[in-house]
Order: sequence, then structure tokens, then C-alpha cells
Amino acid sequence: MKENRIYNFNAGPAALPLPVLEEIKDSFLNFNGSGMSITEVSHRSKWFDDVINDAIARTKRLLKLNDKFQVLFFQGGASTQFCMIPMNFLKQGQSADYVNTGTWSTKAIKEAQIQGKSVNVVASSEDKNFSYIPKDIPFNSDAVYTHITSNNTIKGTQWANFPDTKGVPLIADMSSDIMCRAFDPNPFGLIYAGAQKNIGPAGVCMVIIREDMLEMVPDSLPSMLKYTTFSAKNSMYNTPPCFAIYTIQLVMKWLEETIGGLDKMEEINRKKAGDLYSFMDSGEFYRATAEPDSRSLMNVTFRLPSEELEQAFVQKALENGFGGLKGHRSVGGCRASIYNATTPDAIESLVDFMKTFEKENG
Amino acid sequence: MKENRIYNFNAGPAALPLPVLEEIKDSFLNFNGSGMSITEVSHRSKWFDDVINDAIARTKRLLKLNDKFQVLFFQGGASTQFCMIPMNFLKQGQSADYVNTGTWSTKAIKEAQIQGKSVNVVASSEDKNFSYIPKDIPFNSDAVYTHITSNNTIKGTQWANFPDTKGVPLIADMSSDIMCRAFDPNPFGLIYAGAQKNIGPAGVCMVIIREDMLEMVPDSLPSMLKYTTFSAKNSMYNTPPCFAIYTIQLVMKWLEETIGGLDKMEEINRKKAGDLYSFMDSGEFYRATAEPDSRSLMNVTFRLPSEELEQAFVQKALENGFGGLKGHRSVGGCRASIYNATTPDAIESLVDFMKTFEKENG
Repeated sequence: MKENRIYNFNAGPAALPLPVLEEIKDSFLNFNGSGMSITEVSHRSKWFDDVINDAIARTKRLLKLNDKFQVLFFQGGASTQFCMIPMNFLKQGQSADYVNTGTWSTKAIKEAQIQGKSVNVVASSEDKNFSYIPKDIPFNSDAVYTHITSNNTIKGTQWANFPDTKGVPLIADMSSDIMCRAFDPNPFGLIYAGAQKNIGPAGVCMVIIREDMLEMVPDSLPSMLKYTTFSAKNSMYNTPPCFAIYTIQLVMKWLEETIGGLDKMEEINRKKAGDLYSFMDSGEFYRATAEPDSRSLMNVTFRLPSEELEQAFVQKALENGFGGLKGHRSVGGCRASIYNATTPDAIESLVDFMKTFEKENG
Repeated sequence: MKENRIYNFNAGPAALPLPVLEEIKDSFLNFNGSGMSITEVSHRSKWFDDVINDAIARTKRLLKLNDKFQVLFFQGGASTQFCMIPMNFLKQGQSADYVNTGTWSTKAIKEAQIQGKSVNVVASSEDKNFSYIPKDIPFNSDAVYTHITSNNTIKGTQWANFPDTKGVPLIADMSSDIMCRAFDPNPFGLIYAGAQKNIGPAGVCMVIIREDMLEMVPDSLPSMLKYTTFSAKNSMYNTPPCFAIYTIQLVMKWLEETIGGLDKMEEINRKKAGDLYSFMDSGEFYRATAEPDSRSLMNVTFRLPSEELEQAFVQKALENGFGGLKGHRSVGGCRASIYNATTPDAIESLVDFMKTFEKENG
């Protein structure tokens, strides 16, 4: 590969589209004729206004967001959203529904409970090690919101369709699958996504908020913990993470102009994941761990016949230029994270390698 | 200048050392032989461990921090620290002293008060538009901490010496002057600095905390708002802003290896600021706004005889390759931010330009 780059299957921070990295590199000492690096440009300048506003406009077009939605940029990752969501939306005497589908859902629930907020865990797949997405969930009609994790990076599951909460605003952590497919945004009161998996580098969290949610925010919170602070100032109440937002802008441009939008991106992602799952299903050596109807398009988790073979597989893969195939330290096994930036060519090469490894070790 | 770069006098985000930018650019598609960009490398990898640990080790050496101090990296800027400090350290019935020396001190005080915390503003320079640093301050011996802003970016003032609080831990917002000079860190319980002025890009805030302060943190806070969460996990409880921390590492390397440490950096900064102030003091056309004993080494604020001349000055400067000389929108006038990365050559060229402008318009 170019500049000795590897095939990067990291779960996050993860691969970025090569044309995006090349554009950053080329402009790094002189951004857009400013005579400065993007890291040196004032966030109060026309240059940066153009960057953030273009990132927002492209996000709105890609996700087909109407004018009721605002696109904001926070710091602190999805983990800070875990605490801000109940802090901003749940008052004394109110409660919210949470669906527990893995490590990150569990943390989101915990951060609400730490604050003494009332949380109903209306469904959980913990009984089968979070290997599936629950069905027929008894949502509460008086919940202020319903929180889900759209894709579970560690467990390799993903909601194939979003649940119908009968008008209760959905809040979704989409850190690991935002922009992987088209969906109807209208049932969502808030969508948040740490950028470092599918849309940018670590250090920025995209928040898409519907305006009715802003009306629920109490005045009494510290400025940096209120959604209204960011909404009122186009995410620039204080200095935003400029470089990370610039990278998001370039990724959105790549999605629109090179890929051709989310329908096209979804088609590519379905083909990539389909090829990998089909190959594993065709034999006994590699075993996908998620239940078939809950399989993730983004994180393909799998086991080999033994832990020794898994270790050898990860090691041999590394030697052959395939990085990041070790499963999360909390669950073991193997995982190929195949986000938007992972090319079909990378999948093809990985399947070839897996065939060879099986032949030599099966 | 190289690649048509300008002389950058922005207040923040601000100029970074050119060798740092060049190293980032050169390694951007393949960081340290990883086959990945620094933006694509896992924060749980040996590659990133080396980055963050080297950034910490260099910071400790540069500031002469003993083992009682930890160096941590947060997101959300100094503004998030404004809320975290009282949240973590001030219990019911306790109070803290704050010195108000400008816009950022005022915000720090406000974010404590929003939370219903007890704050004593023991001194303020608001009576003279924050043009000086107060003296002979009646600190309270029972304060849990004393908060100061070491350098006031907007007003152009800086504490020449830190106050003696008789053992009460000092907490300082050093966003705009950390690493500009050597100082005794031992009276400080906590130092924080948004990186985007003197040590890196926007999107990371360095926090230096003394271990006794960690004992005061209550268990009941959300994880991302507790100093102990970051302390226990070497700033990697969740994904840190990897690119920003990498840039800090390179800036610390530049400070140690190219500049030669903080005594040397201070000498250079005193010469740079001295040259600029001396030139202005030598005539009537340019008038430095801060009182002489409170003048900042980092942000040189000044006025011209009229607002029309100020506008013309900023415009003409831009045309001649000097950017960022407009004063903060809240105070007007002019400002040259001359952080560590601003070269003596940039100062010399600026003074030459100022002489010419005076000749043509004086």
C-alpha cells in the first residue's frame, strides 16, 4: 500500500478515508490560502466559519435533517453525553427508558443513576452476553426519552431497525455507526456520536438535537454542560476542537462527493459485511458471535477454534499488514471493524488472508 | 516565508512552532512506522502509550514537577475546568477565594456561583478595566483554594509573581502563559491550560494536579467530571484527543531540545515582549494599555490615536503578512499575541512595520 500503510481494522480511533488524510497533509502548513495551519487559524475567522458551517450543511444533507434539527460539536466523547443527557432532560419525578445492549449502554445507564435520576431498563440482552438486540420491548409511554445504542462496537451487534416508541423521543448513541446507512431521523430527539470511529479523529462528539429537546434544558446547569449553550453559539461558546471538526468536514465531503451519499454508502457497507459474514458462515473455522439478525455492519466479532489460534491469527495478520483484529480486551476473540473508510479491497484481502490462515492451521 | 506562511499574532488558536507542524505533516500518513496516521492509531496501542507518556515526562521535566504532581489531559477547554473545580473541591459549608483579573476570571467565578458554591472575590481590577494585577490581597486562611488567572489574554496583563496564600492551594488558569517561564510549582494544587495558545492545538486542556487535591473529590460525581477518573486511568478512561496530545508532545520536545528549557524560553520571551513594549514606550503613537508592572509577556494590548487608525493598522498589517492583530471583540483596540512559537524575527518585522505605519499615518 501507499507509504507502507496497513489495512486498519481498529475499532476506534479507526481508519479514515485516504483522500481525507492526503488533503489534511497537503494543506497542513497553509490552510486554504490563510498562511496558517488549520491548527493555527482563529475559530472566530471566516476560514473556520466556512469549515464548521460546511460540516453542518453536509451532515444535514447526508442525514436528510429538516430545520428542526441542529448539528452541534462537543468535546469529552460519548462518555460526557452519558452524563449530560439525564442532567439536561430528566427532572425530579420523571423517568427515562434505557435498552441495555452492551458495555456502552451499561455505562450510559450508570451515569444517569450516579446522578440519582430515575431510569427504567426496559430490555437487556445481558442474558446471552449481549449477542442480540432485544425485540418486543415494553416501552413506557410516559418516559421523557428512550435511550438506545445503535451499534455495539464491542459485542458486534446493531439495531437492524429502530424501535417504535410511539412518540417518545429516541436518543441514540451512534458513535460506531453514524453515516453507515440511511435512516429516518424524525423519531430522534437527540443523536450523538464520538467521531473517532466513522466520521473523524478522536476529540469531537457530534450531537444532532431536535429543537423541542432544547426547551427542556434547565437554566441552572454549568454553561459547558448545557445543550443550549452550544446551540446558541453554533458550538463556539468557547474554542471548539477545530482540527477535529475540519476532519469531519472533509469526511462529509468525501461521503457526499466521492461515495455519493448514504444510500450508496449503505450498499457498499452491506456488500463488505456480507462478504465477510458469508465467508465465515461457509465453514466451521471462523464463528461470528452475534446472532444473525443482530449482526453489525461495522464491527464483525468472531472466534476461532481456540484462544491459541486466535492469538496466532492476530499475530500472523499483523505480520501480513492487517492491524486491529484483536477483540476488545473485555471479551477476547477477534474483531474486524469495517467502518465506512474500510475499502472493499481491504475486505477482499482480509478474506484471502483468513482462507490462507485456515488452510495452514485448520 | 516558507509555503507563504504569515506572521501569526492570533490570540488562540495561535501559532505553533514550524518544526512541530513539519513533523506532523511528514508523518501524517504513516506515524512512527505504524502504517497508520496518528489520527487512526488506537489509544490502547504501544504507539500512543509512548506519545502520552513522553508528553507527560517532558512536561514534568520542563516544569520541575515532583512525584506529587500528575499531568492529565481533559477535553472541553478551560471553560469546563471552571465548572469542574468547584464541583470537585468545594463542599457545602466551604468556600474558595477568587481573584478577578478579567473576562476569564469572571467566567470562572460565574461557573462556581451557578452551582450554588460559596465564592469570595477577594480582589478585582475591574475598577480600572482590568488593566492591572491587584496587590496586597486579603486572602482567607480557611479558603479551600485560591483561584487566579495567571495571564489575561484579553486585557494583556500577567501576574509577575504568584501571590503567597500561606499554604492554601493555588489553582491557576494558565491557558495563555503555561510554559512561557520557569516558576515554583509547589504552592499550586491545580494548574490548567487550554492548549490552543502556548502548547498545542484546540481540543485538549492540560491539567496538573497535586495528589492531595485528589483526596477531596467526591465519589458521587459523573465519571467524566471527576479528576480521579482521569488520574486513575492516565487520562484514558475514554478515548482521549490523540492528535492534540501528540501535538503537545512535539511542542514539549521542541521546548526541551530546540529551545533548551523554560529558563531559556523565558529569556527569549522577555526579549521579545521587551522589544515591543520599549518601542511603543519610545513614542506617543502606540500606547500599551496594561499598567507597566502588570504587562503580559504573551499578549501585548495597545491602542492607536483613533479607532479609524486602528482599523487601518489591522488592515494594512494583514496586507503585509501580519495576521491576528485585532483586539478581542469585547475590548477593541489592537493586540499582538506573542506566544512561545512567535519568533524574535516576527517581532522585529512587526516593529519595522509599526514604524512604517506610524511614519505614513502619524
